[in-house]
Amino acid sequence: MDEVASAFVPGHVTGFFTVDRDPDPTKAGSTGAGVTLTEGVTVEVEYAESSSLLLNGQPVEMGAVDRVLDALSVHATVRAETDLPVGAGFGVSGAVALGTALAANALYGSDLSENELVTVAHGAEVQAGTGLGDVVAQARGGMPIRLEPGGPHHGVLDGIPARGRVEYVSFGELDTTAVIEGDTDALDRAGEESRSLVVRKPNVEQFMYASRRFAREAGLLPDSVAEAVAAVGEAGGEAAMAMLGESVFALGRGLTEAGYDPAVCEVDVGGATLL
Amino acid sequence: MDEVASAFVPGHVTGFFTVDRDPDPTKAGSTGAGVTLTEGVTVEVEYAESSSLLLNGQPVEMGAVDRVLDALSVHATVRAETDLPVGAGFGVSGAVALGTALAANALYGSDLSENELVTVAHGAEVQAGTGLGDVVAQARGGMPIRLEPGGPHHGVLDGIPARGRVEYVSFGELDTTAVIEGDTDALDRAGEESRSLVVRKPNVEQFMYASRRFAREAGLLPDSVAEAVAAVGEAGGEAAMAMLGESVFALGRGLTEAGYDPAVCEVDVGGATLL
Repeated sequence: MDEVASAFVPGHVTGFFTVDRDPDPTKAGSTGAGVTLTEGVTVEVEYAESSSLLLNGQPVEMGAVDRVLDALSVHATVRAETDLPVGAGFGVSGAVALGTALAANALYGSDLSENELVTVAHGAEVQAGTGLGDVVAQARGGMPIRLEPGGPHHGVLDGIPARGRVEYVSFGELDTTAVIEGDTDALDRAGEESRSLVVRKPNVEQFMYASRRFAREAGLLPDSVAEAVAAVGEAGGEAAMAMLGESVFALGRGLTEAGYDPAVCEVDVGGATLL
Repeated sequence: MDEVASAFVPGHVTGFFTVDRDPDPTKAGSTGAGVTLTEGVTVEVEYAESSSLLLNGQPVEMGAVDRVLDALSVHATVRAETDLPVGAGFGVSGAVALGTALAANALYGSDLSENELVTVAHGAEVQAGTGLGDVVAQARGGMPIRLEPGGPHHGVLDGIPARGRVEYVSFGELDTTAVIEGDTDALDRAGEESRSLVVRKPNVEQFMYASRRFAREAGLLPDSVAEAVAAVGEAGGEAAMAMLGESVFALGRGLTEAGYDPAVCEVDVGGATLL
């Protein structure tokens, strides 16, 4: 038997969302839409007597990862590597949780199905309070629309059939937990309106428009982000805020043409996978 | 606006299945499980006054493709290229139908979602009588388990979380329409039993075992296929019959080690995608 197993999970930026609470973490989550990224997280899981997690070589704590290992009843050394900004709206915690589930299942022969592994990682992320919709989107790939909240047994996904270049910049972190555990009435209304716009017309331009509208209506737009989104618009491009970070993403060459020096990747095609 | 749009759709071999008839083609389909392949079909769609289809440069008729273009209310020249054997259990007709839906939607700005495009292609394939479960599997990628039949609004999918090398050989065609429109009682019972084996233990070895068991119980095994499957088993590998073709697939190097000269690819990760 191999000593290690590895998985890749794409990054994910959410353009708009709702907060859907439920005592059952496999039913809780969010609706909304986003973009998965070929830039993501590689997770390597190795047998160990007690569990530990290294993110880019540094020891860190992630509640979602602890919960995934507990759910599979295993101990492991988890090594996650990523070039994505951490805590800035790129779904790194969800990616580490899902990658750990996939790789640990393969290493320990736990015989869970893909849906079961996504359920474990989604529930762990919800219970840890670090995310609501990244895991199910990262499992699918592409540009996922979350029509109904929750893990694979309850949630409903669709997708915008588009691929291409994505650019992003991050100016800093935002506290996901503080936002999703606070009063989300205005946010939920804005998220529902944006979702309905994209369901009626599931194309890229509409998604970017609905995302910008959401950031404004939900009152989540930091000045730095508003400025970058406006600059891209003035340069003839399309940008929006990555929820929830002080971060901006653009399709095509939008940020470059507005004079920024963005990271560049593509819309991810495949979603999370064993390596 | 571009003059052409292209999509890639993975091949798909089914290991076992049931036939689930329904007057509504979006509810009809099959349960079962299979493997999607990095070897697949590239479909290019170009504006045209009247529709035509070329498969590897040769004019052909495919009822499913006509129906997809009708559903989108467009005319197009469709060029499909593949190295897969045609009519031999590799899902070529489903791939051409789904690739046509994705590429035509992009070219003509039809603004359908991914689920809607998969629904159109699945329904077209069912109504043409050329397949029951390839399209939804090809849209997902990986090793899909079809838990409930039908398109995305009715069907339920899961997956075996495994990746790796796949080998295949084909000795000839089998008539899918004749089998799925005939008496399928024994086949359905065998398919349900195999599905239940894989749901209980969703790993690769169990899938290959359940697939061999199905081919035998359903009485579908041609001598050429039985011989190759046995030869791979004697060489210590795992092989099964590709439904519905006179074709064999093996994971890893099974066919090579049994002395065959197979085509080689990998389990596809991403499923169908625009290029």
